[in-house]
Amino acid sequence: MALSRRFLVLAEGSFGPLSSKTANACIRYVPDEVAAVLDRGTAGRIAQDVLGFGGNIPVVADFPSGLAHRPNALLIGIAPAGGQFPDAWRPIVCDALRAGLDVWSGLHTMLGDDHEFAALAAASGATIRDLRRAPSTLGVASGLVRDLDATVVLTVGTDCNIGKMTAQLQVQSSVRQLGHRVNFAATGQTGILVEGRGIAVDAVIADFIAGAAESLTLEAAEGADIVLVEGQGSIIHPAYSGVTLGLMHGALPHAMVLCAQPSRTTIHRNPWVPIPSLIDMIRLYEGAMESLRPSPVIAVALNTFDLDDREARNAIERVRSETGLPTTDPVRYEPLVIAEAISAFHLERLAEHVSGGGSTAV
Amino acid sequence: MALSRRFLVLAEGSFGPLSSKTANACIRYVPDEVAAVLDRGTAGRIAQDVLGFGGNIPVVADFPSGLAHRPNALLIGIAPAGGQFPDAWRPIVCDALRAGLDVWSGLHTMLGDDHEFAALAAASGATIRDLRRAPSTLGVASGLVRDLDATVVLTVGTDCNIGKMTAQLQVQSSVRQLGHRVNFAATGQTGILVEGRGIAVDAVIADFIAGAAESLTLEAAEGADIVLVEGQGSIIHPAYSGVTLGLMHGALPHAMVLCAQPSRTTIHRNPWVPIPSLIDMIRLYEGAMESLRPSPVIAVALNTFDLDDREARNAIERVRSETGLPTTDPVRYEPLVIAEAISAFHLERLAEHVSGGGSTAV
Repeated sequence: MALSRRFLVLAEGSFGPLSSKTANACIRYVPDEVAAVLDRGTAGRIAQDVLGFGGNIPVVADFPSGLAHRPNALLIGIAPAGGQFPDAWRPIVCDALRAGLDVWSGLHTMLGDDHEFAALAAASGATIRDLRRAPSTLGVASGLVRDLDATVVLTVGTDCNIGKMTAQLQVQSSVRQLGHRVNFAATGQTGILVEGRGIAVDAVIADFIAGAAESLTLEAAEGADIVLVEGQGSIIHPAYSGVTLGLMHGALPHAMVLCAQPSRTTIHRNPWVPIPSLIDMIRLYEGAMESLRPSPVIAVALNTFDLDDREARNAIERVRSETGLPTTDPVRYEPLVIAEAISAFHLERLAEHVSGGGSTAV
Repeated sequence: MALSRRFLVLAEGSFGPLSSKTANACIRYVPDEVAAVLDRGTAGRIAQDVLGFGGNIPVVADFPSGLAHRPNALLIGIAPAGGQFPDAWRPIVCDALRAGLDVWSGLHTMLGDDHEFAALAAASGATIRDLRRAPSTLGVASGLVRDLDATVVLTVGTDCNIGKMTAQLQVQSSVRQLGHRVNFAATGQTGILVEGRGIAVDAVIADFIAGAAESLTLEAAEGADIVLVEGQGSIIHPAYSGVTLGLMHGALPHAMVLCAQPSRTTIHRNPWVPIPSLIDMIRLYEGAMESLRPSPVIAVALNTFDLDDREARNAIERVRSETGLPTTDPVRYEPLVIAEAISAFHLERLAEHVSGGGSTAV
């Protein structure tokens, strides 16, 4: 499915290391599929220059300039809080559909349900792909994940937009190199864009969060020894904590990897919520899993993009000594220590399972 | 709005103290609006006899017998897990709409969107009221509840279906008698049915759970000194915990009342999840609030319906001594001790607020 895509990525007004999450993940993990980025403010530069990665992908100022790079799809590369469609983008989406480009969107607003967009798509033969559209068959969770042999590992975070998807994607190939069959389970629009399947758990009806998490974990476990589930939000996030806990209780991870940004002291856009120490965060996460399935935090993934090399290495060393856990920035440095922690945990669980006669799921 | 309703309550196959939550709440809190209950299994008896309350409300075996009691609306009085519409009820709903009865439903399935039902309603002039239909204007939570002067009290539970709505409704008039202006904030279809307003937080898009909780708390706080928010689910419920935590972080209670059923040792329909001690549950709930707004559990409401009087009094005494908190069964016995705990907490908070110069919301 991913082979023929060639995206013009809409990041108007927001292209930057922290502000255009969907665009950035696309540029990092499927760069060959990105024709150009549309953002007036950084137009004329290249992705490498704006983000620190992404090579020569050009940034253009308007739709006609983007079209010159021969995209076959427009990707909405920004996720505003609330996930609604900003009306300022309407003309660009209309232009794209008129030009026969598919439109990929991870917003809560279902672009396919918009009458104007639907009519333009029908006229030009373009397809509108709403990545957050929930499957119509979801049910409530019932603990089915407990029957899996695969080891399930979930990333959890001190905050949203801190690297929970990125950590899993970075670690995935290292885990594979250690000899395990590993799958990534996408739970957000960006992860789904990269992986080609998954469910946006923040877009389902509230009663079905855990049910959706259960369903996508079961799907990802097929043919895998280890499932890396993309985390969402934070257990202390004032707007999104419900999604976080529902995902935890539906996916029922055997172990968790904690993601944090050392420079961040309060919740994004909610400065009234201080972020507790990592020790306290670990206690909160492990405590919230305890009654359903004891699940230790086994490693820490730091996001140090805004620190210089010395500060970043100091932060990693400080967290390692504070938590006693393998710690790295899996984007900036080698993700292997996290992969090794996951591999060791999996092998130990397997050994216990076998020696226990496999009589109880652990 | 409530004055002219006269319900035939559909509880087919499930009428009983624990199994027909919506029906039972309606019979308990607005008995004058219940014409009859439809349930073949208990037909011929009266509500008092089946539930232990509800007086002479008759149970009938079929729709024509129900019609003889001159209802003007059919209420779906059962909420199956998942909230979907069982097709076995279709003929009864069709009969009701043909007879011109309004249909009230708290299911996830939106009966108003069903083509057959909509056509029948249009033909007879009946109205279909889907209590769980989410407002179209919801946004993400942003901590606005922190600006309220009113004291917000949330019920939280060891499990779902354990008395979180009932406890608030029972306590409400006692709090009023203690001299406070008090409002009930409904968060589920049954509470909305009783109160006439509210939002079913389990039926909104997952990202908007806390936003919905914030919005309904703000609405209920108008003209109130104390807001009693109806809790949902449990922080350890494998299917519904996301709704529970999102509601907590959106409503931002100043204090919580813990609801529990002494005879229940595992989560309803999920025997693989043991319910921890009440001390551990209190620790979990207080810990989950700590980073956003420290919120103590100030009382315990027990549901002792399945114990005899001596067992019930023993259970209450045991919990009181174990937790050190005012404890009662607010349905079976006097709810005053919980109302007094809420009143005392409110007055103390007010005093601190005044002596602190009102400079910071607490």
